[in-house]
Amino acid sequence: MKTDHQLGDLFYPERVAVIGATNRKESIGRALFENIFNDFEGEVVPINPNYDKVLGVKSYPDIDSVPEKIDLAIIVVPPRLVNNTLRQVGEEGIKNVVVITAGFGESGSKGVSRETELRKIADEYNLNLVGPNSLGLLSTSVKLNATFGPEKPLEGSVSFMSQSGALITAVLDWARDRGIGFHNIVSLGNKAVLDETDFLSAWENESGTSVIIAYLEGIEDGSEFISTARSTTKRKPVVMVKSGRTEAAARAVSSHTGTLAGSEQAYQAALKQAGVLRANNVETLFDFAEVLRKQPLPQNNEVGIVTNAGGPGIMATDALEGAGLSLASFSDETLMKLDSSLPNESSIYNPVDVLGDAGLDRYRKVILALIDDPQVGAIITISYPSAVLSYDELAKELVEVQKNREKPMVSCLMGGSRVKFAVDILQSGDIPNYFDPERAVKSLGALNRYRDIKEREYYPPETFSVNKTRALEILSQVETRKNNRLGVEAMDLLETYGISIPKGEIVEDPERATEVASNIEGKIVMKIVSPDILHKSDIGGVKVNVARDKIREEYEDLIVRARNYQPDATILGVQIQEMTDIDTGVETILGMNRDPQFGPVLMFGLGGIFVEVLEDVSFRIAPISESEVREMINDLKSSPLLRGARGKKPVNIDSLVETMQRFSQLVSDIPAVLELDINPLVVTPEEAKAIDLRLTVDEERLGYES
Amino acid sequence: MKTDHQLGDLFYPERVAVIGATNRKESIGRALFENIFNDFEGEVVPINPNYDKVLGVKSYPDIDSVPEKIDLAIIVVPPRLVNNTLRQVGEEGIKNVVVITAGFGESGSKGVSRETELRKIADEYNLNLVGPNSLGLLSTSVKLNATFGPEKPLEGSVSFMSQSGALITAVLDWARDRGIGFHNIVSLGNKAVLDETDFLSAWENESGTSVIIAYLEGIEDGSEFISTARSTTKRKPVVMVKSGRTEAAARAVSSHTGTLAGSEQAYQAALKQAGVLRANNVETLFDFAEVLRKQPLPQNNEVGIVTNAGGPGIMATDALEGAGLSLASFSDETLMKLDSSLPNESSIYNPVDVLGDAGLDRYRKVILALIDDPQVGAIITISYPSAVLSYDELAKELVEVQKNREKPMVSCLMGGSRVKFAVDILQSGDIPNYFDPERAVKSLGALNRYRDIKEREYYPPETFSVNKTRALEILSQVETRKNNRLGVEAMDLLETYGISIPKGEIVEDPERATEVASNIEGKIVMKIVSPDILHKSDIGGVKVNVARDKIREEYEDLIVRARNYQPDATILGVQIQEMTDIDTGVETILGMNRDPQFGPVLMFGLGGIFVEVLEDVSFRIAPISESEVREMINDLKSSPLLRGARGKKPVNIDSLVETMQRFSQLVSDIPAVLELDINPLVVTPEEAKAIDLRLTVDEERLGYES
Repeated sequence: MKTDHQLGDLFYPERVAVIGATNRKESIGRALFENIFNDFEGEVVPINPNYDKVLGVKSYPDIDSVPEKIDLAIIVVPPRLVNNTLRQVGEEGIKNVVVITAGFGESGSKGVSRETELRKIADEYNLNLVGPNSLGLLSTSVKLNATFGPEKPLEGSVSFMSQSGALITAVLDWARDRGIGFHNIVSLGNKAVLDETDFLSAWENESGTSVIIAYLEGIEDGSEFISTARSTTKRKPVVMVKSGRTEAAARAVSSHTGTLAGSEQAYQAALKQAGVLRANNVETLFDFAEVLRKQPLPQNNEVGIVTNAGGPGIMATDALEGAGLSLASFSDETLMKLDSSLPNESSIYNPVDVLGDAGLDRYRKVILALIDDPQVGAIITISYPSAVLSYDELAKELVEVQKNREKPMVSCLMGGSRVKFAVDILQSGDIPNYFDPERAVKSLGALNRYRDIKEREYYPPETFSVNKTRALEILSQVETRKNNRLGVEAMDLLETYGISIPKGEIVEDPERATEVASNIEGKIVMKIVSPDILHKSDIGGVKVNVARDKIREEYEDLIVRARNYQPDATILGVQIQEMTDIDTGVETILGMNRDPQFGPVLMFGLGGIFVEVLEDVSFRIAPISESEVREMINDLKSSPLLRGARGKKPVNIDSLVETMQRFSQLVSDIPAVLELDINPLVVTPEEAKAIDLRLTVDEERLGYES
Repeated sequence: MKTDHQLGDLFYPERVAVIGATNRKESIGRALFENIFNDFEGEVVPINPNYDKVLGVKSYPDIDSVPEKIDLAIIVVPPRLVNNTLRQVGEEGIKNVVVITAGFGESGSKGVSRETELRKIADEYNLNLVGPNSLGLLSTSVKLNATFGPEKPLEGSVSFMSQSGALITAVLDWARDRGIGFHNIVSLGNKAVLDETDFLSAWENESGTSVIIAYLEGIEDGSEFISTARSTTKRKPVVMVKSGRTEAAARAVSSHTGTLAGSEQAYQAALKQAGVLRANNVETLFDFAEVLRKQPLPQNNEVGIVTNAGGPGIMATDALEGAGLSLASFSDETLMKLDSSLPNESSIYNPVDVLGDAGLDRYRKVILALIDDPQVGAIITISYPSAVLSYDELAKELVEVQKNREKPMVSCLMGGSRVKFAVDILQSGDIPNYFDPERAVKSLGALNRYRDIKEREYYPPETFSVNKTRALEILSQVETRKNNRLGVEAMDLLETYGISIPKGEIVEDPERATEVASNIEGKIVMKIVSPDILHKSDIGGVKVNVARDKIREEYEDLIVRARNYQPDATILGVQIQEMTDIDTGVETILGMNRDPQFGPVLMFGLGGIFVEVLEDVSFRIAPISESEVREMINDLKSSPLLRGARGKKPVNIDSLVETMQRFSQLVSDIPAVLELDINPLVVTPEEAKAIDLRLTVDEERLGYES
């Protein structure tokens, strides 16, 4: 989303020009023109100086010569002609353009500069430009297939954006067999102008789209994406395959698209914060899209299962936990109803086993009872092929029973060809059917997660009153340094943002050391302060619990140790600090790295082995609100330790939460802070206190504000 | 596996009797007879006193009257007649029986006693009995469909056992559409006689079966299963859906089958030890079975990917890590070959992108290069529908190229109806094709895991020389107790099995206390010993680092504290112990519980929060060999802490391993030990030492040996 594009009629043109349309067989220009020509409800105009007619339609030598108003221009001319053509399009006042031609950013330095030029022209004329290197776009409600692919989709209400044109081609063929329909489809190509965020906002406000799905390899502008998606997902579900999850795949993305992929942790955090449901494969992408399109949202996460065989019912039950669901406990009323409708050998408890000899009647009674039970959030009906039960009849019954009722239902009428007609019936009644109970449960899990997303309240991050001017002053210390890193000497930075630090200061002579120490009530720690000494403890550069009459002596000793270690080390002084009682608290680490796509990525974890060995850490994109901070803490497997596991007193979580919010504000306010780690951040039953920090400053951004 | 059954010709009878065959429509007796009659290569004889003929075949009043030799009897008479009928069958010398009739162990106390009787008869006549409550069995090579289900399978080499008859019915319909064939299929029913272990051994030695698959809800005899499956899986892959994984589902299994399901941890450990590949749904079960049946095993876990589009190649790459695979690094020779065969814009690095305009020739060259590269263990070929490439041709090429080559290949020719013929071609050439790259990768992952299983060496557990007689003496202490639990007073038990414990002993007077203390070199710990005081520390019942001149005084104090806490507490004395330096070591927990199915389940984890908060524990079924112990340790996420993470000295892992082996021997040798926990087991750089223990004794088994 480079500027605030209003896509307007990109998907709903009345007249489309195909610049580069030809009669030459097996050419893209012909395939594309033919696809539009065959079905489009509006008019399509070929532009090509070498032809009088393309497929019998009068062709114009250039866009300028077309007498009628063009709403959408598709460019399929050779790469070197694209930018000139684009300028002509802009001059004509045409706003919507799709550049099919490849040979831009994805292919070498010549392509890169061609793309830069293209972007400039698009900006100049304020174009809604899709591509370059795009398969094109489709819009089923006006029967527009502006792609050069061989497939055309069924009409539906799922809108699909894909960074891979190939995937669109593959999916269209596959989806038709499954009766999956689409509303808009766009192949994003190189995303030189329009990107995923533009289509999110366009489809959010577009009545024909009920579910948005996406295949992405990267996101152009992370924070724009998060804030747009946060709003979109409140109104419509967004399901995404974001590939390049693993390191190996991220490398493949980079070499494939030429862009630096953000880290998986950042994507994972961002999609969670934005409310995007993630899928890891195409089948799951469409399972989720279809169930979200077809079924109402459940009132709770409890599922009722009806089955005519134990085995599949157990498989469904097994899958619940992993999908964030649980087995519903039925109300007494329901149990009584089931008891009176079922034979003695049945199980009236969930999963309800209506037995292998169950006919339509038993199924109906059970399902009606479960629909009436408010403790049941959703229903799965399972059946294996049985001589006494017609799948077609059962399917009709399910569709009938669900009508006008706001409780989600999916089914597993298990079988192959035997279940074909029943599946068609279910399809027409919008009930998804699966062979595997696990898949049915996962789909209900997506519905349930989307209910949570829709219901959650988002409050923007709180803004604390801070002393930013002073913070910038402290950071400017680096300007006199050999490198751009700061350590404990920059602890005051945290204080300017209201983060607690131990009493004390950095002193440059033993007299001052004694003076500072005398103002500290508790035990005293002394540390050498030098940007050249990274591991202070290793050289004996930290003295704990120093006796008050030994301050001067220890001061001298610290200086000697530093000199011995590295004669030319820059010594900034000695830090005299009040000792924090770590024993009553929990050591944590709070860090920030800047991701190329998402900006400041916050990391939080418990100190020591929890981060290093167990990798028990959670990530969020800053700035984060209070509720997001709390979620971030609860994501940790080790978070019970903060709440006082094993007989320890619980720590002050509220103080930790505020510290994390202030930290988030700091890194969001000041882009010059490139990396920042508070390690340890000790949280005691009283408060959260930063003991040490390391930070990297981007000197070039010191003057800027976010 | 109640006795050592030789199934012999269970699946290959020449003449089958259906006892209870009828002409009555929609009856099981008719459906079953008809299924056999329609296709069976041998002869089928109906037995029913009420008919002269069934479907035109001469019927006999009872099995006794049949003049010819019967090889297999199928019983479908009403429940109350089954046992009499069974006895007649036994009297006739017929060894193979399938009892279809339900109304046994699964249905109330009457059924349970009926099943006990049935089992007795089967034992008396040494019958190979399937069921009761079984759908029947199928054997495609002799065209025998001895089930009452509506489906018949294609012939193939996968043999399938299922505890759910419904699932067989559902799967048969579904599998035929996918071209999946079967060799033997059996519905296990109540497993009164023949169970999963019998069929494992039968199919292990049966040339028609290449892959064994199973749907199970429970395993009858855990240790029999493990030892049989260990041998089976060395020869043939076994893939299993074991349902009842979650607690909710395990409860459903119990109420459904009336048996107590073993714990999921025990199953997980057992299947791992046995080399069984586990699937969580039917699709994965068959994906794994098919790829294992069709494709050779890879030489290593590195995968080469060829694709004509970046996106799907990245999706495949993403899936590798989770499947235990990695992206192959090509040899220089391969890179040179690729460089000379592909256009400049292609990626010659893995995943190889042959570009959207690739024809057959480019694919062929790349695949041949990867086949020749020993660094490539397996190959995935991906393609989206493209105008310049025929899927059919590509499929033929893949089949051709793989012939006579021992490198596994799978493909993702992506599409729906467009890919149909190509899939048939691939099918006939034994190359599995998937729409989703993730599924293709998971299948290769199963091949790779099975290679590991086939290659791993299994050495039976070492037997240490121990003092079992003394161990039993120590356990017999409980006979004089109010309950069957022992604590630190039974530490000697560990010593009898060669597990290190701190120096010291339990004394009953202050003089002896001083004496014992004087023989201890290090620091001294004193603990009150009482079966009535579970949490010694809470009442000040533990004194650490006791000065040598304070032994008497502290002794008296401990006794007073115990009396104050509970005046009538049984006090066994005071333990005088050498203090173990916990600081240089790592606290671990080693425990054992007896599982109803699997017997002694070992648990190992790091002490404190690792077990309690992080649930970082691993399980194995005892007895375990050294290599299994090492695997068990390495399964822990926290295991790096044993190897000296964060600057600590590594602990003595060999000593830990031996301790765990000795522990395994102890709990395997002495079934009277019901539960045993060493907590903590401190492992220092020198050795592993048990500091405290709790155990529960089964007094009734004290006289028995395992």
